[in-house]
Amino acid sequence: MQASNVSFANHVERAGFSTWVEKQLLTLMFRTIGPAPVGLAVGKRNSVIPPGVVPKFTVKFHDLRTVAEVLIDPETAFGDGWTKGRIQVVGDLTAFLEALYASLGEVNNGVGMWSRLRSQWTDRLQANTLEGSRDNIHAHYDLGNQFYRLWLDSQMVYTCAYFSSPSVPLEDAQVAKMNYVCRKLRLQPGETVLEAGCGWGALAMHMAQNYGVRVKAFNISREQISYARQRASELNLGDRAEFIEDDYRNVTGTFDAFVSLGMLEHVSREDYRQLGGVIHRSIGDRGRGLLHFIGRSAQFPFSRWIRKRIFPGAHAPSLREALEVLEPFDYFVQDIEDLRIHYARTVEHWLHRFEKSSEQISTLYGSEFERAWRLYLAGSIAGFRTGTLQLFQIVFAGAKFKPAPWTRAHLYCSSQKNTTCTPTTF
Amino acid sequence: MQASNVSFANHVERAGFSTWVEKQLLTLMFRTIGPAPVGLAVGKRNSVIPPGVVPKFTVKFHDLRTVAEVLIDPETAFGDGWTKGRIQVVGDLTAFLEALYASLGEVNNGVGMWSRLRSQWTDRLQANTLEGSRDNIHAHYDLGNQFYRLWLDSQMVYTCAYFSSPSVPLEDAQVAKMNYVCRKLRLQPGETVLEAGCGWGALAMHMAQNYGVRVKAFNISREQISYARQRASELNLGDRAEFIEDDYRNVTGTFDAFVSLGMLEHVSREDYRQLGGVIHRSIGDRGRGLLHFIGRSAQFPFSRWIRKRIFPGAHAPSLREALEVLEPFDYFVQDIEDLRIHYARTVEHWLHRFEKSSEQISTLYGSEFERAWRLYLAGSIAGFRTGTLQLFQIVFAGAKFKPAPWTRAHLYCSSQKNTTCTPTTF
Repeated sequence: MQASNVSFANHVERAGFSTWVEKQLLTLMFRTIGPAPVGLAVGKRNSVIPPGVVPKFTVKFHDLRTVAEVLIDPETAFGDGWTKGRIQVVGDLTAFLEALYASLGEVNNGVGMWSRLRSQWTDRLQANTLEGSRDNIHAHYDLGNQFYRLWLDSQMVYTCAYFSSPSVPLEDAQVAKMNYVCRKLRLQPGETVLEAGCGWGALAMHMAQNYGVRVKAFNISREQISYARQRASELNLGDRAEFIEDDYRNVTGTFDAFVSLGMLEHVSREDYRQLGGVIHRSIGDRGRGLLHFIGRSAQFPFSRWIRKRIFPGAHAPSLREALEVLEPFDYFVQDIEDLRIHYARTVEHWLHRFEKSSEQISTLYGSEFERAWRLYLAGSIAGFRTGTLQLFQIVFAGAKFKPAPWTRAHLYCSSQKNTTCTPTTF
Repeated sequence: MQASNVSFANHVERAGFSTWVEKQLLTLMFRTIGPAPVGLAVGKRNSVIPPGVVPKFTVKFHDLRTVAEVLIDPETAFGDGWTKGRIQVVGDLTAFLEALYASLGEVNNGVGMWSRLRSQWTDRLQANTLEGSRDNIHAHYDLGNQFYRLWLDSQMVYTCAYFSSPSVPLEDAQVAKMNYVCRKLRLQPGETVLEAGCGWGALAMHMAQNYGVRVKAFNISREQISYARQRASELNLGDRAEFIEDDYRNVTGTFDAFVSLGMLEHVSREDYRQLGGVIHRSIGDRGRGLLHFIGRSAQFPFSRWIRKRIFPGAHAPSLREALEVLEPFDYFVQDIEDLRIHYARTVEHWLHRFEKSSEQISTLYGSEFERAWRLYLAGSIAGFRTGTLQLFQIVFAGAKFKPAPWTRAHLYCSSQKNTTCTPTTF
């Protein structure tokens, strides 16, 4: 990028930025963004385009102060600036973020270190102690079932769906995901399952209804638990799906299987061993389990903005980090799958529904809230598409768990749910 | 175990061990072994059986000195003692080792720390420098193709096979494994593949013959390379399967895919990042790869005896360790599978064939060598059965590798090899 600084500066000048500070800021911004096909505009001025680039997107900053803020704290200032309308993106927001993430991957612009330092401070403020977790979870999941109902599927499943092909409708893909999880766990009628972080309870109820197991499901979001209890009572599930408003750390009892979808992101890394301990005291060496979580290809924190405005206290671990839950307890990893393209597709559905309700959401929660969530959803799609975000499912088992089938073919049989099928030969 | 020390001591006494030292040694040995159904005998004396236990196996020590040696350095002294005939096992050797490994998992007998300290010293003596690797690999793989031909399959594949069911013959299961690897890599005709550590070349030749790719395969075992070259020439593979006698660290060129079966075990952990660098300079961000290796559920070294007598310089990593190869280079993990039951079955075949040739092997290489290898094969079966050994396949891809199918169903189609198939719906 160094070589083109002079020509950038010329462009910046021709676009009518006369002061030295203005030129420097725009030049720095182009250097930060990297090779993405993006033009930049400030105030009412014409946009500046990098030499030789055909821009697909234009980012309009309200003023130079906003440019400076983004340079100083890119993640937070871009998120807040876009939310408050001080930054506009001309072009499709998701596609812009996808191009931006890919471009940032090409440049080493020193943002990393700053971001890391600030992250440590955020971590401290949002620590997932028993009480801290309650605050952090409340901030996201207790926004009102009414809000989530506007853009989630009919069963309110707020985790990555599973698409046998991209055209499958969201409702079906969520059911397919639940069956996929049950197949991976090879649930048998009469078994007991512990679910840590159960959302609105769809998986627990699905397991109880379709796999003949008894599920004890934990969650510290009051709104979600109360919704799940009402739904379980409507379905006459009795004690086959029990919903407990408590922290996973307070789990008691022993179970055949452990399952957790979308909770590890809310566990602080220093508590991974403790989570492993909870799993071990619940399923011991004879049980098996499945962890499903947003992860990363290497160890780095969530965007500061995401942790400030959307998911306080959240962390998406690399596989190496996530395995800190299991290795100290000698759990055997049987299967790990990355489903990131499935999560990109899932959030595309959510964003599409969200946008159809955006006026209603603005009216109910304010336009800044609506924009923040729209940015979060678009950014998530971009992240899963480019791979800055991954979705891992880890299947693990204790040393004394024995029934493994010889291949994973049973996961892909055309027969329904938990019926067995003969693996195909090669 | 503490509670039964007194009764152990009584039993030991009744069996005719009168001295304090004898009693202490046998009591300690029982404590070390844990709850396995094993009786112990020394010299010509009757066997001692733990109270309440119906023994399935008896371990006969030649003298008390041998008992003491095993207590001091269990792994090496048991291996060497059995090899030299100073320790005999009455009962099936593999089944005994399986019971022993399971039993050792139950007790925390302090062997771990000793073993770890000694391991560090062994590591230093067997360092995998460029020259060290050559010595270490020579010691195992250059024992003579004639030796391996006696008990491997007809294609001389010395890695875990893939059994769609346990009754599949070994030759077929090795072909199935090669197809499985090619499917996981989704090889396309015209692509180029780098293989690091190619054994006798079966996989490279299979890929070239059946998947239309060009393979460059590295190995530092002279005997293996010369065998592979001759076979490739017989098959008229030309430059489609090129065999290079050199270290993986000296690899040059760029490729579409990287594959390595059974080599990571011979890479020292401090060189994992270097291996990642070799992969990255070979396939960059646009390629994908597969690592297939013997691993462990947690971080601990191979048996000292194995490293001393069978595999100098070898280390089976935990997944957390193995990911040190990939995470620094931002490779995305797509799929990890544990195939340990397949390796147990594979080695069962090998041991069966080995035993049929055991007289011939004794004649050619001496009876101690024959016993050492028999113990190594039996111990491997026991390890893979109990899970003290795992076999991991990791599929990974660079950030710019794009063609991922939506599900893994294509791996399990009944259609042959690399034809595509529609994933089943749920």
